[in-house]
Amino acid sequence: MKEALFEAASGLAGGGIPIGAVLVRGSEVIGWGYNRQVQQNDPVLHAEIDCFRNAGRIGRYADTVLYSTLMPCYLCAGAVVLFGVPKVVVGESRNFAGARDFLLEHGVEAIDLDLPECHEMMAGFVAGHGALWNEDIGEL
Amino acid sequence: MKEALFEAASGLAGGGIPIGAVLVRGSEVIGWGYNRQVQQNDPVLHAEIDCFRNAGRIGRYADTVLYSTLMPCYLCAGAVVLFGVPKVVVGESRNFAGARDFLLEHGVEAIDLDLPECHEMMAGFVAGHGALWNEDIGEL
Repeated sequence: MKEALFEAASGLAGGGIPIGAVLVRGSEVIGWGYNRQVQQNDPVLHAEIDCFRNAGRIGRYADTVLYSTLMPCYLCAGAVVLFGVPKVVVGESRNFAGARDFLLEHGVEAIDLDLPECHEMMAGFVAGHGALWNEDIGEL
Repeated sequence: MKEALFEAASGLAGGGIPIGAVLVRGSEVIGWGYNRQVQQNDPVLHAEIDCFRNAGRIGRYADTVLYSTLMPCYLCAGAVVLFGVPKVVVGESRNFAGARDFLLEHGVEAIDLDLPECHEMMAGFVAGHGALWNEDIGEL
């Protein structure tokens, strides 16, 4: 989760939405990503999507775990279910409840660490950039 | 749907998976895309995702319709639900049942035209490239 937080901070430093994600297989990180919606003018480039892209076509995901600083939305949870990622660990879900129930319905383990550092980074961003955040989660 | 089929044929001609999509607002096509998983070594670049990317950050999707040659998977249906696209028109769902129920559960109208030209293009591809297709839909 530290690496996901580093990704989120990288996104924030570049003028973007501070959400980061990493994909782990065993003890190895095989993908990194952060939300680049602003930076690349791309509405689908959420942190988890960026992370899956950067991991490349790895084939099977049955032995992977996705870490994200925030509970995934339907787009990213859809990718998790499609690829068969069995476990998602998130930094928090207080700023965004996301698609937790959808993940659980599809047998994905969803662990919420409820970390203050994740919550505070996101809360600060949402408070200062409400319109951008609402665009990111389709609430326009 | 003709434009989505043209996109699918473009993907096939480039060595990719023949699925195409367009996003329409009123009478105007505002996004085009096709599956580029093979061409860009990117597991998330499904036709609908490519289409949403190419349309850019359009803001509200409430007056848009997504056309795809094939019923969307969970990843692409997740994007539809996230963005609030109210209607999806697909060329067929016989080769892939996709996430139709998920779309309906979230109030998205899903119209299946069951067009032979869509079905045949996809069936031909699946018959000749089973492993690639299974990778695309996370069935490895």
